[in-house]
Amino acid sequence: MKLLLSHADILTLKDGQWHTLRDAYLGIQDDTICYLSETAPTEAFDRIKSLPGKLLIPGLINCHCHAPMVFLRGIGSDLKLQDWLYHYIFPTEAKWTDAGVRAASELAILELLGSGVTSFSDMYYRNAQTIQALCEAGMKANLCRSTQGRPELPYEQNTDCKEGLALFDQFHGYNGGKIRIDLCIHAEYTNTPATIEAYSAACFERGAGMHIHLSETQHEQMECIKKYGMTPAALFEKLGTFKNRTTAAHCVWVTQEDMDILKANGVSPVHCPSSNMKIGSGFAPVQQMLDRGINVTIGTDGAASNNNLNMLEEMHLASVIHNGYTGDPTVVKPGDVLKMATVNGARLQGRSDTGNLELGKKADIVAIDFDKPHLIPALDYPAMLCYAVQGSDVCMTMVDGQILYQDGEYLTVDAERIRVESRRALKELYE
Amino acid sequence: MKLLLSHADILTLKDGQWHTLRDAYLGIQDDTICYLSETAPTEAFDRIKSLPGKLLIPGLINCHCHAPMVFLRGIGSDLKLQDWLYHYIFPTEAKWTDAGVRAASELAILELLGSGVTSFSDMYYRNAQTIQALCEAGMKANLCRSTQGRPELPYEQNTDCKEGLALFDQFHGYNGGKIRIDLCIHAEYTNTPATIEAYSAACFERGAGMHIHLSETQHEQMECIKKYGMTPAALFEKLGTFKNRTTAAHCVWVTQEDMDILKANGVSPVHCPSSNMKIGSGFAPVQQMLDRGINVTIGTDGAASNNNLNMLEEMHLASVIHNGYTGDPTVVKPGDVLKMATVNGARLQGRSDTGNLELGKKADIVAIDFDKPHLIPALDYPAMLCYAVQGSDVCMTMVDGQILYQDGEYLTVDAERIRVESRRALKELYE
Repeated sequence: MKLLLSHADILTLKDGQWHTLRDAYLGIQDDTICYLSETAPTEAFDRIKSLPGKLLIPGLINCHCHAPMVFLRGIGSDLKLQDWLYHYIFPTEAKWTDAGVRAASELAILELLGSGVTSFSDMYYRNAQTIQALCEAGMKANLCRSTQGRPELPYEQNTDCKEGLALFDQFHGYNGGKIRIDLCIHAEYTNTPATIEAYSAACFERGAGMHIHLSETQHEQMECIKKYGMTPAALFEKLGTFKNRTTAAHCVWVTQEDMDILKANGVSPVHCPSSNMKIGSGFAPVQQMLDRGINVTIGTDGAASNNNLNMLEEMHLASVIHNGYTGDPTVVKPGDVLKMATVNGARLQGRSDTGNLELGKKADIVAIDFDKPHLIPALDYPAMLCYAVQGSDVCMTMVDGQILYQDGEYLTVDAERIRVESRRALKELYE
Repeated sequence: MKLLLSHADILTLKDGQWHTLRDAYLGIQDDTICYLSETAPTEAFDRIKSLPGKLLIPGLINCHCHAPMVFLRGIGSDLKLQDWLYHYIFPTEAKWTDAGVRAASELAILELLGSGVTSFSDMYYRNAQTIQALCEAGMKANLCRSTQGRPELPYEQNTDCKEGLALFDQFHGYNGGKIRIDLCIHAEYTNTPATIEAYSAACFERGAGMHIHLSETQHEQMECIKKYGMTPAALFEKLGTFKNRTTAAHCVWVTQEDMDILKANGVSPVHCPSSNMKIGSGFAPVQQMLDRGINVTIGTDGAASNNNLNMLEEMHLASVIHNGYTGDPTVVKPGDVLKMATVNGARLQGRSDTGNLELGKKADIVAIDFDKPHLIPALDYPAMLCYAVQGSDVCMTMVDGQILYQDGEYLTVDAERIRVESRRALKELYE
């Protein structure tokens, strides 16, 4: 099957810079980009899809998510963190069933696809439910089983770690590689050094990736220093975690030395501005990390602390809040933010075959409809994507050459059924 | 004409608190709300419009805008302020014609109506063009003629001020009160004390409102203290400006004493978070102003420094950035942000007949479609409006009982013609 997308503007990254192809052509052979030019191809295509007025960009990669938490969207707003966790989040999560996580995953997938996300990195549990929903939809994700339970038990008895390894063995590379499994150490403060060390070694043996929370709050940073005499980043490095390809969510309070550690170990921080702002965690040193060549990425975090999974909203926040915080309008530029949301995310996920629109890459493509009053004129595409485009301006989301979402319609799943089932499951959860 | 909106949830402000009427009824007699209840009315209505799954809120009021600057959207991003103004904004504005401002105003109105704005306060010039566009659309606005030109001339020769007064005399109360005219002193640093004093007195004579920029940047604040030995707020108070109902855009760098002045004089600050973040101006002390009972409102500023006119995006930023900046997740609560965007805005505009959905108020109403994946569940409406709702979730915008926008369609203007003419005018502007 050969599909040609024609008459669209196309953003492509070349030598570290975004270039715009105007009124251009992107050809797809099965799941792979096989043609890219402002000149029409001479070869034949089975199908041509004309997209005038649209901009094609690489699919957005949401690098830190707890997708099923969409069912906890907006629960207990504007509380202190501990109040919120212990009186709202944990009691509600305690009522979860497999069916609930499945329904919540399906709802999250609708939201993610509808706002241009082609792949995400998800930390949660009952992950097999989310995987089934992903396979039905045709979407990509790196999933990991969170470890938060009973850190007092020795590693051998840690059922969360056992489940994480079993998940890796069963599902890593599943569904033609769309599903990848990372391991997870929820955070330094919810696990013992012995467990962190043993699990990091098990991760290394398998060549798996690791997904952690790192230096999200000042309290976490200070408590770790008090307890271990070193920062969370130094502790994880010491315990061998960073020998693995590591996803480090938040990194708000990392020090200069911590950033050296992240850089030296190729750790990828995930900037989660909505969550960091809403919960009052603070401002991650994004420009400083970018200046060091660290592979900074973007994530939404879970909907409970956001309250949506809208990557274009995160890109907006990432582009503006650091200007406000530093007083310098030239920091964290849109072109860099767009890299964070695409090619850097692909690197974080261990997916070297996607993240940019270029020959030989998988056709993970998002189309943005610029024929909207709030997008006229479009003088500078990266700036428009970060400062003006809304999630709802996404008019097509394609994964591995297959269109999953188009003009408000979902082509692989029954959105109406999902909405009805979500409402039913939510009624049970909140009764 | 009597219209009944039925089966919608309705947010109404009562005794300072937002209350939700469930599956409720809102009746409109001509331009005024005449019925509001969870119980169906017994009286007859000419027309019934059923809105299940929708939330009705008061129309959003954008309190600081330069609407025609949508034509400068995204121009010269990520530059230092002076570079940007002198090398991009001013040279482009120098090419403006009446026809250009008219086309730009029409484009801005599409964007504003489509994202739930029923009224806005606009500071610009060639205002008659914007007024004509507003009357055609049926939208409300407070407009003022900006004063930036040739401050070295004495007040009697200040043509900007003359134009401002003439605009007031010609258009204040125009189109059945939909159009109101304020006067404008662009800023303390672009005008002389003599002109500020004389124009403020002329404003007082007419009982007009005044629209100013106040303490937007630290540089402005410091230079004023250096030049006059007092802050901009103290200077404006001394010169009589605050005897008038005053709209004070930004107020980022106001001191404790300045806030006392604003409170004592009933001045309404306009919080413009996107612009303050993007340009690197900083964080206005919003919670401190709210705590003093100051009438804080919200605005988008112009599209050149935003880059859109999306009030729901501003509400999101206003709700989260102060949490991030102060480290306290309990500041600037969604319920307060919703007041800033509605009832406080009406007070700022001198429109006591709107800003809330209650009996006797004008029917300035926005419907939000909650049947979207990213809005399920909706456990807390003000929190959802500030943290999850997008501008594109607005499915109806009504002004004075007349539906101007519904489900992507504009009912009073030809959106297609406006888009075509905008593109043509933009081509001329950027050639």
